[in-house]
Amino acid sequence: MSLLEKTINKIKMPDQKIKQLALRRLRSQARPAGSLGILETQAAKMASIAETLDVRLKNKVIVVCAGDHGIVSEGVSLFPQEVTWQMVFNFLNAGASINVLAEHAGAEVKVADLGVNYDFPPELPVYHKKIAKGTRNFIQSPAMTRDEAVRSIEAGIEIVQDLVSNRKIDMLATGDMGIGNTTPSTAIIAAFSEIPVEKLVGRGTGINDEMLERKINVIKQALALHKPDKNNPLKILADLGGFEIGGLAGLVLGAAANSLPVVCDGLISTAGALIASELAPAVKEYLFAGHRSVEAGHIFMLKQLELTPLLDLQFRLGEGTGAALAMELLDAATRILSDIKTFEEVEIEDKNRV
Amino acid sequence: MSLLEKTINKIKMPDQKIKQLALRRLRSQARPAGSLGILETQAAKMASIAETLDVRLKNKVIVVCAGDHGIVSEGVSLFPQEVTWQMVFNFLNAGASINVLAEHAGAEVKVADLGVNYDFPPELPVYHKKIAKGTRNFIQSPAMTRDEAVRSIEAGIEIVQDLVSNRKIDMLATGDMGIGNTTPSTAIIAAFSEIPVEKLVGRGTGINDEMLERKINVIKQALALHKPDKNNPLKILADLGGFEIGGLAGLVLGAAANSLPVVCDGLISTAGALIASELAPAVKEYLFAGHRSVEAGHIFMLKQLELTPLLDLQFRLGEGTGAALAMELLDAATRILSDIKTFEEVEIEDKNRV
Repeated sequence: MSLLEKTINKIKMPDQKIKQLALRRLRSQARPAGSLGILETQAAKMASIAETLDVRLKNKVIVVCAGDHGIVSEGVSLFPQEVTWQMVFNFLNAGASINVLAEHAGAEVKVADLGVNYDFPPELPVYHKKIAKGTRNFIQSPAMTRDEAVRSIEAGIEIVQDLVSNRKIDMLATGDMGIGNTTPSTAIIAAFSEIPVEKLVGRGTGINDEMLERKINVIKQALALHKPDKNNPLKILADLGGFEIGGLAGLVLGAAANSLPVVCDGLISTAGALIASELAPAVKEYLFAGHRSVEAGHIFMLKQLELTPLLDLQFRLGEGTGAALAMELLDAATRILSDIKTFEEVEIEDKNRV
Repeated sequence: MSLLEKTINKIKMPDQKIKQLALRRLRSQARPAGSLGILETQAAKMASIAETLDVRLKNKVIVVCAGDHGIVSEGVSLFPQEVTWQMVFNFLNAGASINVLAEHAGAEVKVADLGVNYDFPPELPVYHKKIAKGTRNFIQSPAMTRDEAVRSIEAGIEIVQDLVSNRKIDMLATGDMGIGNTTPSTAIIAAFSEIPVEKLVGRGTGINDEMLERKINVIKQALALHKPDKNNPLKILADLGGFEIGGLAGLVLGAAANSLPVVCDGLISTAGALIASELAPAVKEYLFAGHRSVEAGHIFMLKQLELTPLLDLQFRLGEGTGAALAMELLDAATRILSDIKTFEEVEIEDKNRV
């Protein structure tokens, strides 16, 4: 049995009894029922995963998966491909957006090369999981082979296994870096949703009307060429995806198999999570949506994944930035569940004071 | 000159040059322009108040203003009036929602009695600023006199003065406690907005259809009786308000006069902020909106105050809970501004490495 199959088989449903206990405690706290909105359901979900009402999310890790894309030769992105590897160095030098927001959230940043078009020195402290130096141009051929698709997912799983074997981890978050990667992500969403491409395509990091038109046409051509079957997520990843998107799917599968909560970031991370949930629907029970991206396709995916986004700050950056901030809110949600007193606890205290 | 007048005169516009410098730095960071959405504008606003690009929001205080309301005798609230004073004790015992979320945000909670219908022992560690034991029923008479309205605002100002004279404070947040206080808050919004009452009234902490109908009628009666003039905010506060709403207005005025950023919470805190901004429009430059409440009138006020809410978690609790979580995001915003490297800084680093 392959690592991918073994991992999928290992994923179990979290404890629903604990979830019910958590919801009961939340309802009996000295405040109007439901008054802490979304954070209540998130806290109960977190409790079911951790199998306790006193969840402690101390050790947090954000894994940023990087990869390059053959499709950039069609002119779908504002930045040159070199920015992908340059940003990997920026992550390692702790000067990037995700470093700053991860530090604020008390989370560690790990970087993984799934398929960057650059030879990183082997001693560089990144996960060296390069499948190839970028995908192929998917309006000419599949982005990758089926074998490469499986290997990219398994690379993500291996990263989680390495992380949990080395230390205690309480929560994982996913982030992405890859110039051009909103195009494959949107193609994946189009393949699963059958929503017209025009409605799905966003401006990524800020492209103009002409590039937007080109992006729409590129995705339409790709769909016409590969005729995606939404019951075959591995083929969709291979035909239309990116290596980092496969890696992000693997992170989600690996987290769920290890009973770890995993927060996904924006469009690209969520595309990876969608692939994971198509392979193993139970991953939804371990998934949290960091934020609502401004990209139109994101809304569709969150619905598919049955997730409520925690933040809506008009971010359009990736790297895991939305997920990092959401980790702080999820941490607060766990404190709400365990620390706000119930009416009964308040009464007991009042009696003890008398 | 009264304390209120002196305070209003003291409020100055924050440094617009620093704001421009901040926006320039944000645009030159190694990421797509504008990609950190709302947090960028908040960071620039924060820099203009603190007069530095390296803002540190270390010392945070949340002041919860409590008061009771004569209007509860009309049956507009789900909870009995006793809950107001009981919750004051719960705040002091650190078992309430705001204590838990304030601790998560690294903020201190201070409680102020502006007009609770209960005799607190003088040694209790609250700000003793009781104007009266609850307002009068405002469908029969003004909720308070004009003098009481001024005194409630000045009490809020005095609290800020006490806080800043005792220690360094970097950020203030406002919270409320007062059974029935969504009714006066909504009446205030109706007075300023001229939006039909039916469209404004929400379910507070969770009232049913019958109580909702009663709440609408009560507010309509009050508006018919007092004929509010939106150019006379002090009279609106006196006729329709609450002592804690006056206190909340005073906190905002006091914060602005002391060049402190102030985060307002949901419906009631924002009603206080609206009174403050009608008295001194420049307070808007010091105000931040913690979250979007589920109450309909909240959206109108945020527009009036030109504020973008940071969170939308479907909270309907008050106490400062939304503001507490927003403080964490604002803190993150300051780190974004100062710590994410610019393209230039990244290049210099690359050169030094070679």
